[in-house]
Amino acid sequence: MIMKKTDMLYFACDYMEGAHENILRKLLEINLEKNTGYGFDKYSKSAADKIRKECGLNNQAEVYFLTGGTEANTTIIDALTMNHDGVLTADSGHISVHESGAVEAYGHKVITLESNEGKVSAQTVKDFLVKFNLDASKEHMVYPGMLYITFPTEVGTVYSLKELEDLRKVCDEYDMPLYMDGARMGYGLSSYNCDVTLKDIARLCDAFYIGGTKVGALLGEAAVFTRPLKVRNFLTHLKCHGGLLAKGWVPAVCFDELFTDGLYYKISKHAVDLAMQIKEALKQKGYKLYMNSTTNQQFAVVSNDFCDELSKKVSFDMWAPIDDKHTIIRLATSWATTQEDVDKLISLL
Amino acid sequence: MIMKKTDMLYFACDYMEGAHENILRKLLEINLEKNTGYGFDKYSKSAADKIRKECGLNNQAEVYFLTGGTEANTTIIDALTMNHDGVLTADSGHISVHESGAVEAYGHKVITLESNEGKVSAQTVKDFLVKFNLDASKEHMVYPGMLYITFPTEVGTVYSLKELEDLRKVCDEYDMPLYMDGARMGYGLSSYNCDVTLKDIARLCDAFYIGGTKVGALLGEAAVFTRPLKVRNFLTHLKCHGGLLAKGWVPAVCFDELFTDGLYYKISKHAVDLAMQIKEALKQKGYKLYMNSTTNQQFAVVSNDFCDELSKKVSFDMWAPIDDKHTIIRLATSWATTQEDVDKLISLL
Amino acid sequence: MIMKKTDMLYFACDYMEGAHENILRKLLEINLEKNTGYGFDKYSKSAADKIRKECGLNNQAEVYFLTGGTEANTTIIDALTMNHDGVLTADSGHISVHESGAVEAYGHKVITLESNEGKVSAQTVKDFLVKFNLDASKEHMVYPGMLYITFPTEVGTVYSLKELEDLRKVCDEYDMPLYMDGARMGYGLSSYNCDVTLKDIARLCDAFYIGGTKVGALLGEAAVFTRPLKVRNFLTHLKCHGGLLAKGWVPAVCFDELFTDGLYYKISKHAVDLAMQIKEALKQKGYKLYMNSTTNQQFAVVSNDFCDELSKKVSFDMWAPIDDKHTIIRLATSWATTQEDVDKLISLL
Amino acid sequence: MIMKKTDMLYFACDYMEGAHENILRKLLEINLEKNTGYGFDKYSKSAADKIRKECGLNNQAEVYFLTGGTEANTTIIDALTMNHDGVLTADSGHISVHESGAVEAYGHKVITLESNEGKVSAQTVKDFLVKFNLDASKEHMVYPGMLYITFPTEVGTVYSLKELEDLRKVCDEYDMPLYMDGARMGYGLSSYNCDVTLKDIARLCDAFYIGGTKVGALLGEAAVFTRPLKVRNFLTHLKCHGGLLAKGWVPAVCFDELFTDGLYYKISKHAVDLAMQIKEALKQKGYKLYMNSTTNQQFAVVSNDFCDELSKKVSFDMWAPIDDKHTIIRLATSWATTQEDVDKLISLL
Repeated sequence: MIMKKTDMLYFACDYMEGAHENILRKLLEINLEKNTGYGFDKYSKSAADKIRKECGLNNQAEVYFLTGGTEANTTIIDALTMNHDGVLTADSGHISVHESGAVEAYGHKVITLESNEGKVSAQTVKDFLVKFNLDASKEHMVYPGMLYITFPTEVGTVYSLKELEDLRKVCDEYDMPLYMDGARMGYGLSSYNCDVTLKDIARLCDAFYIGGTKVGALLGEAAVFTRPLKVRNFLTHLKCHGGLLAKGWVPAVCFDELFTDGLYYKISKHAVDLAMQIKEALKQKGYKLYMNSTTNQQFAVVSNDFCDELSKKVSFDMWAPIDDKHTIIRLATSWATTQEDVDKLISLL
Repeated sequence: MIMKKTDMLYFACDYMEGAHENILRKLLEINLEKNTGYGFDKYSKSAADKIRKECGLNNQAEVYFLTGGTEANTTIIDALTMNHDGVLTADSGHISVHESGAVEAYGHKVITLESNEGKVSAQTVKDFLVKFNLDASKEHMVYPGMLYITFPTEVGTVYSLKELEDLRKVCDEYDMPLYMDGARMGYGLSSYNCDVTLKDIARLCDAFYIGGTKVGALLGEAAVFTRPLKVRNFLTHLKCHGGLLAKGWVPAVCFDELFTDGLYYKISKHAVDLAMQIKEALKQKGYKLYMNSTTNQQFAVVSNDFCDELSKKVSFDMWAPIDDKHTIIRLATSWATTQEDVDKLISLL
Repeated sequence: MIMKKTDMLYFACDYMEGAHENILRKLLEINLEKNTGYGFDKYSKSAADKIRKECGLNNQAEVYFLTGGTEANTTIIDALTMNHDGVLTADSGHISVHESGAVEAYGHKVITLESNEGKVSAQTVKDFLVKFNLDASKEHMVYPGMLYITFPTEVGTVYSLKELEDLRKVCDEYDMPLYMDGARMGYGLSSYNCDVTLKDIARLCDAFYIGGTKVGALLGEAAVFTRPLKVRNFLTHLKCHGGLLAKGWVPAVCFDELFTDGLYYKISKHAVDLAMQIKEALKQKGYKLYMNSTTNQQFAVVSNDFCDELSKKVSFDMWAPIDDKHTIIRLATSWATTQEDVDKLISLL
Repeated sequence: MIMKKTDMLYFACDYMEGAHENILRKLLEINLEKNTGYGFDKYSKSAADKIRKECGLNNQAEVYFLTGGTEANTTIIDALTMNHDGVLTADSGHISVHESGAVEAYGHKVITLESNEGKVSAQTVKDFLVKFNLDASKEHMVYPGMLYITFPTEVGTVYSLKELEDLRKVCDEYDMPLYMDGARMGYGLSSYNCDVTLKDIARLCDAFYIGGTKVGALLGEAAVFTRPLKVRNFLTHLKCHGGLLAKGWVPAVCFDELFTDGLYYKISKHAVDLAMQIKEALKQKGYKLYMNSTTNQQFAVVSNDFCDELSKKVSFDMWAPIDDKHTIIRLATSWATTQEDVDKLISLL
C-alpha cells in the first residue's frame, strides 16, 4: 500500500477514517453510563434486535459484535465446521489470499476453487463435491466442511440473487454450511442493480457478518447466525479465540446507530455513488477497467509511468502488475469520501 | 456479577464506563483524518515512543496495541513460549481461573503454583523447577516454559520490587521468560507504598502489557516486549490469533493520551484514593477485610443478610462464599468513579 | 526410572517385552500376505467383531486400532468434546500428570478433581458441576466437556460396578460423555474381587480404549466408541492427529489374537497372580503398602537405604519420596513376568 | 484403490506386506528381552548410530524412530517452522494432496508451487520468494517458513544432485529450512542413474525422514535432523503430537536391520529392478507412459476397457482419468514383490 502525506488525495482503502458522527456522538453521550461487560449491555441487545429485524430473523438467530474481520472469519468458520474440516472458497477469496493463515492457524485448510470476477459458481462447487465424493482416497483428503463467499467480492463484484440461490441449493444437497464474509456488505447491498437484500442473505446463509469497520463504524463487525449453533456457547468460543471484548457495547453502539433510520445503507450508497463517478471518468478517459465493479472499489489498468505520476498526488493501491509496462490500480471510496476529493481525483486522471 | 439498574451505585468492576474525556476528544478531533491501517499510523508510533520512554527502553523494544486482555495474554504467551510449553502461574492467576481456557486453546497448559495473597514467591517457583528438573519422567511432563504474574494481582495486592527482583533471578537461572499481565497496572503503580515503577517492570520482565481497558482507555492494551522476539513478525502472529485491528490507531490514540502528562498515573491514583476511603470505612465499621488490598479493588467479608440488603442499592461482585452465612464481596473503583458515589456507598456500609 | 543391566530382575514397568508368542507367530505366518492399508484389512474387521461381541455391542459401535496410549487419549478426547472444552479427571489422572500436555496441545484444559486412591467419586464430580453451573462467570471459565477415568487407576486400584454406575448417572444428568483410559484394562478386569466386566464398561462409557501395549500386544490400543460419533470420519480425524497407520493390520492382528479364546484375560490374570504374591510377601515382611492395589502394580514404602540396596539387583520405579528417609517404590509385573523372577524378587525383599 | 482377492496379482501399493524376514526374526529373538521404553533402548541407539554413519553425520545429528509418514511430516514440519508459518511444496506434494489436512491441523498452511514431473525447481521457489518479499501486504500473507520436497516424488521421479544443490542454495539465501519426505527414499536412492546418495541428502537438507513402512520395515520411519533443533525436546514434542511409542525399539529394530549390510539398498534395488521390467514391457507393448518414472511406481495410460479387464486379475491403482476413454494406472512393486508375479503381470499387459 502506498501512502503519502499532506495535500494528498486518499483512495487507498476504506478504513482510513474513524466513525460516522452519529456513533461518536452517542459514545460521547453515554461515556459515563455504567454498562455491563462482555456483551450483556442494553446496546448489544438493541443492536442485535435491529439487525434481526432487518434480516427478517426471529429471536433464535444469534447476533454478536466482534472487533474485526479476521476475528469474525476465524471464529465463525471454527464454529461452523468440525475439527480440521476444510473451507471451500473462490481462489481470490480473502481468507486464501490476505488472512495471514489465520484460518489454517485454527486447523482448517482453505481449499480454492476457480473463480470468475471474484465469484465462485454453484456448478464449480458442485463439480468439486462430486469429484471429492467419488475419490477412493477421500479419507486421506481434507473434507470440504463449508463454503465461504464474499459479498461484495474482493474485486468489487456482487453475486446476483439467482447465483446465491444456486449456491444454497448445492450447499443443501451436500449438507454444507454457507458463510458470507460481508466486510463491505453495505457497499454491495447499495450497489446499482444489486437484487439481493439483507433478508435474502439471512435466508440463504447459515452465517454471515455485516462489516462495520469499513462501513462507518469506529470498529466492529456483526456476526449473524441464522441457524442453531453447534458450539456450546459462542461467548466462550470467542474468548478462547481471544476476541471477547470487555466493553462489548463499543462495537454494539456502532451497529445500533448504523441500523437506525437506514444509516448503514445511506452511507454505503454515498460511497458507491462516488465510485460510480470515478468509474465513469475512467471509462470516458479511455482507461481499461480491470473489473466491472459496481461497488466502492474501482480497478483500472494504467501505464506504469502514469501510475508513478498519480502516486505523487493520490494514495491508492497498486493491485497487481499486468505486464512490464502496465499495472492494475485500485481506487476505493468510503462512507467518508467527499465529492470534492472525487472531483480532484477525476481531474488528475 | 450482580447488576441492577437506575439509582444504583456501581462498584461491580472497573470496565463499566467509556474512556477518559481526553481520549474521546482526540478521537473526535482526528475522526476524518486519513490514517494508515494495521498500526502503521502516526498515533501508534507516537504512543509507542512515549511508552518506551516511560519504560526507559530503547527503540529495539517492541510495543503493540491490542484490543483486550485475553488477546494480549494469548498472543504474548504464544510468542514467548515454544509449542506446547506450559505456563507457570499463581493458582489464583487470571489465566488459570477466568480466561475460558484461551491459553490452552493455543496448546499451553497452565501450571498452577501455590500462592499467598495472590502472589507467587521466587522460592515456590524455584522449588517447582528444582523438582521438575530432578524428575526422571520429565519428558512425559509439561515443560515450564515461562512465568506469568499479575500486577496488581486479582486480589488487589502488588509485588514489591524485592519480590520482582527475586522472581527475575529465578527466571534468569532457569532461562525462563517472565511475563506480567498488567490489566490493572495503573492501579498497582499508583497504590500506596508501591516501590515498583514502570522502568523496574521493563527492566525485570521479558514482556508485559499495560492495561488500558480498565484504566481510562476506550479499549486496548499496550503489549511491550523488552527483549528481541522469537516470533518472526508480531503483526502476522497477531493476525493469526485474530487480533490485528484495521484501525490500529483507535487503541493507540488511547495510549497516546494516557501517556501524555502522566494522565495514566493521575486517573489511577484517583481510583486508588477512593478505594482507600472505602477500605478505611470498612475497617472502621468493623468489617473483616478478606485481603489487605492496596489498589482499586477492596474485598470484605459480610453477612449474607447484609449482602442481600446492599445489593438492592449497590452493584458489586459476590467474590466467594466464606461459610453458610458469610460472603466475600468485592467493591471496585475505577478512573471514572466519583467522590459522591463513594460517599453514598460508605453511608450504606 | 532406574534400569540396570545383566542379571537384573526387571519390575520397572509393564511394557518392556515384545508380544505374546501367538501374535508374533501370526505376524510371521501372514507376513507376505497382501493386505489392504489403513485399517480396511480382514484382521481389523475380525478383531473389531470379536471386541464388539465381547463388549455386547452391535455393529454401530465403532472400533479402531491405534498405536499407543497418548494417541488414543488425544484422538478420543478430541472426538468426544467440542473445541476448547475441558476434561475432568482425578488429580492423579495420567492425562494430567504424564501426558506431556498432549491433551492441552489440542486445546483442551485438563481440570483436576480431588481423588481417593486414584479414583474420583460421583459426588466429587457432581459437586464440581453444581458449583460450575451456579458460577455467574462461567462464560469465562473452561466448560467441563467430559469425564476421563482410568481403569485400573495409576495406583493399581479399580472402580467397583457401583462406582461406575454412579459416575454414569452424573454424566447422564449433565449430558457429559464418560471416557475410560484402559491402558492396563486387562489387569483391572482380572484383578481379584473386580465386579466389573467389559460388557459393563461398554454399557456405561461413551468411549474407552482397551490397552494392548501393556497387555501382550506388540503395540496398539483398541479404541471403542459405544455411541454414534460426532466427528465426521474417525480415520480422517486420526490422520489429522498423525495416528493413521498404513499397516493397520499390525495392531489389529495383536487384538485378533488377544481376543481369541480369552487370551487377553488369561495373560492378565497371570500378571495379577504374580503381583498378589509380591503384595503378600511385602505384607508378611512388614513393609507398609502405599496403596491397596489389586492389580499388576504394587506400591510399598521402603527405607532409602533398602531402596539403594535393592536397586543394585532389581529394576523398579521410585514412585515418590515419603520423607527424608523413605521412598515409595513401584513393582510392576506383566503378562511376560516369570514365576522364577518373582521368587527371586521375593527372596530379596 | 481397487483390491480384489484370491489369485489376484497385487501391484496396488508398496505397503501391503509385513516386514523383511531379518526384522521379524530379530523381533522374535529379542521378544522377551527387557527393554527400556520410549526410545532409550539399545536398538534405538544402535540404529541411530548406523544411520548417522551412513549419512556422514556426527553425534549432534538427532535421529528418531516414528510410526508413520503422517506422524513424521507433522512433527518434523512443526519442529522446523514457527507458529503459523506456511510450507512450500510442489503442487503434487503429498502433504498438499493426501495428508488429510494434518499439516494444517497444526496450523501450517501448505503453499503450492508449480511442479514439473513431481518436482519443484529452484527457480520456481526463488521466483515465489522474490515476489513474496516485494509484496507490500506480506504481513497479511502466510510466511513461507520452509521448503518440503519428496524423494522420490509421488510420480516416481527423483531430483538430481544438481537440482537438490540448487534448492539448497535458494534455501540458504532465504534462511529457510529444507525438508525431504523420504517415504520411499530407498527406491529413489536405488533407482537407475540416480546421482544422489544419503550423504548428499544429509548434507543438503535440514531434516528428512528415511521411509521404513514402504521399504521393508514392519512399520516406522527414521527422522533425521542434521542441524540443531529449535524445539526444546523432540521426545516431548513428539508425545504432544501423540506419536511417542512406549516400545520404541520396535521401529528401531526395523532400521537396525535395514541398515545392516546394506539391506535397505538391496531390497530397494530389487523393487526397482522389477519395476524397470514392467516399464520396459509397457513400452514394448506400446503403452504410453504417463511419467518417466525410474523408481518402483510405474504409470501408464490405458484404455478404460483394458483397465476394466486388467482389474479382474490385477489389483492396481487407478491414478486419474485422462479423457473419457483413457485412464492413468499406477503399478507399484515393493521389496516383497516376486519375479513370478511380475512375469504374470507382464503376460497380462
